[in-house]
Amino acid sequence: MNHVLIEAKSKAYKVFINTGLRSKIGEMMDSIMESHVSSVLVITDSSVAPLYLDDVVGSFHEKLPIYTTVIKSGEASKSFEVYEQVMTKALESGLDRKSVIVALGGGVVGDLAGFVASTYMRGIRFVQVPTTLLAHDSSVGGKVAINHPLGKNMVGSFHQPEAVFYDTEALYSLPEKEWRSGFAEVIKHGFIRNHTFLNWLQEEVTSFEELPVELVNQMLEKSLAVKANIVAEDELESGVRAYLNFGHTLAHAIESESGYGVVTHGEAVAIGMIFALKLSEQIFEVDLDVKRYEEWFKQLGYNTKISNQLQVSRLVTKMQNDKKAEAGTIRMVLLRKIEEAILIEVPPNTIEQLLVEQMEVEING
Amino acid sequence: MNHVLIEAKSKAYKVFINTGLRSKIGEMMDSIMESHVSSVLVITDSSVAPLYLDDVVGSFHEKLPIYTTVIKSGEASKSFEVYEQVMTKALESGLDRKSVIVALGGGVVGDLAGFVASTYMRGIRFVQVPTTLLAHDSSVGGKVAINHPLGKNMVGSFHQPEAVFYDTEALYSLPEKEWRSGFAEVIKHGFIRNHTFLNWLQEEVTSFEELPVELVNQMLEKSLAVKANIVAEDELESGVRAYLNFGHTLAHAIESESGYGVVTHGEAVAIGMIFALKLSEQIFEVDLDVKRYEEWFKQLGYNTKISNQLQVSRLVTKMQNDKKAEAGTIRMVLLRKIEEAILIEVPPNTIEQLLVEQMEVEING
Repeated sequence: MNHVLIEAKSKAYKVFINTGLRSKIGEMMDSIMESHVSSVLVITDSSVAPLYLDDVVGSFHEKLPIYTTVIKSGEASKSFEVYEQVMTKALESGLDRKSVIVALGGGVVGDLAGFVASTYMRGIRFVQVPTTLLAHDSSVGGKVAINHPLGKNMVGSFHQPEAVFYDTEALYSLPEKEWRSGFAEVIKHGFIRNHTFLNWLQEEVTSFEELPVELVNQMLEKSLAVKANIVAEDELESGVRAYLNFGHTLAHAIESESGYGVVTHGEAVAIGMIFALKLSEQIFEVDLDVKRYEEWFKQLGYNTKISNQLQVSRLVTKMQNDKKAEAGTIRMVLLRKIEEAILIEVPPNTIEQLLVEQMEVEING
Repeated sequence: MNHVLIEAKSKAYKVFINTGLRSKIGEMMDSIMESHVSSVLVITDSSVAPLYLDDVVGSFHEKLPIYTTVIKSGEASKSFEVYEQVMTKALESGLDRKSVIVALGGGVVGDLAGFVASTYMRGIRFVQVPTTLLAHDSSVGGKVAINHPLGKNMVGSFHQPEAVFYDTEALYSLPEKEWRSGFAEVIKHGFIRNHTFLNWLQEEVTSFEELPVELVNQMLEKSLAVKANIVAEDELESGVRAYLNFGHTLAHAIESESGYGVVTHGEAVAIGMIFALKLSEQIFEVDLDVKRYEEWFKQLGYNTKISNQLQVSRLVTKMQNDKKAEAGTIRMVLLRKIEEAILIEVPPNTIEQLLVEQMEVEING
């Protein structure tokens, strides 16, 4: 079966990519798990449960105890409250150290369920079953977290899954908005590490309608290969892994200021990438052809401007509170050229000026 | 300076043992930390703060930003609520990935602050500054956690400190009850790994009054040497580390059933060790001289009987929910002989019978 191997320092595991995979998870787990599995808790959300939960549960042996819990769909579920609720469910279900958590859903489910797995009885095993394009990225690499009202993903761990089961069939039930959100992370991988892939994407993907499944599989494998590469080099984000945050410093600030869930993650990342490209051109005095990328983004339906409902000064403050920041400075991933990323400190004034330039023009009637 | 080296797989660090150490922490941190420290958050509790907080804060350079937060003293602070509150404090103080948390206090502070450190921005550095005898044990080895209403330490991680600063002076302000609680873990180390040490303890410590500081230092070093040994062999408790739970399966059940904080941890462990010794004698058909140990325990002021306020059936249920348990069985650490521990499954009926025998006799007027 098609797969990408992730060789993190703490653990090596496979990302399986195939159509209809959700109905084979139970069967495949037998060969993947190195030791006995005592029970399984499937964590999913209210949008995914009606579509795929039965298939996943049905894929396990009848004798293995399977429990399920359904959280409310949406970013708001990455909260302390839901974290505690799922812990209660796990304890009530009698999960022990040999139990396995299955995260069935998008990035919210993966992050929350992964954080539960990483801290339940000081850490139990889990597998990721992403159902969105966005989650092809977040389900790989072991970053798990919940949000704090003062910042996204501020509370979390590094905890690698035992395997990732990527069922491409699930993608075809997604609305265009979700494709757009996920595709931003695919593009990002091109920008930071693979110019050829980026050019290929620009040629092949100009709309999200009727993408052939072979193209989607190929795209996922190439995108994940970049991620695999980086995670193998730097699991704990002490170096190159920070490059995966290309476009994310501003994106997180936009998401947090808009209220979680108002702008999709990928839409915010798209704005953030255009911003980072412009900033890179300015700081390194290079031509990165930003205009062309911006046109392509627009063609795909991204809004590349910052909403004029947001305040520049507040965005700057949020960027100063980013996890990559140290003591109030702003550190961002920029590009010296395409596929050559660098993490550098940028003066808040420079950021502020450029943010103003990227704001939507207010249209007065 | 006297120290014990802990060589966990993920990190090697020192436990410094000395009088008055709390006033040297800032100074010593400079040489211990491998990279830049941007700021410090000292987490302590309402009992410890008035005694030692000023000394610790005063030990740092004036230029380094130092923040402090004081939680309520007692086991009840190892809750989801206090965990979130401390996270809020950390974010409000602008802690970043180069910040360091100082856990100043007993086991509750160490466990909570350690869990905050392990999950703040996916993990930042921390140091332990234990102020109780009990915490000589819990501060070493990287087990950090909070409690869930359904079980003690059910939510946590493995996160090794950068160093442990053990100020023996702090011990001399402790009430006898606290000595008794901590000493149970010292005895435990003798039982599971060092018969000679156990014999030495039995001869040297027959009361907690006026123990000479040299004897206390020696005792701490020997006790920590056992812990260091085990943690080096098995950081993540997949094998021998479970032996450190000798006496703890019943102890956790007693603590949970009594309501956290009613019985001290060490008092519960003492009851649990006597129980485990009796069970060992019965199962392995050996003579472990339990009577003699029980007499010594009584001489030291331990109550070795289970309170008749507790229900045996409920204790058994709690023991089945222990982290070492799998699918409702009870797994306990027993001794084939002194210093020869083994983790085995024990039938609930056997446990129940022996629990009944160890109950306090009810005295009717």
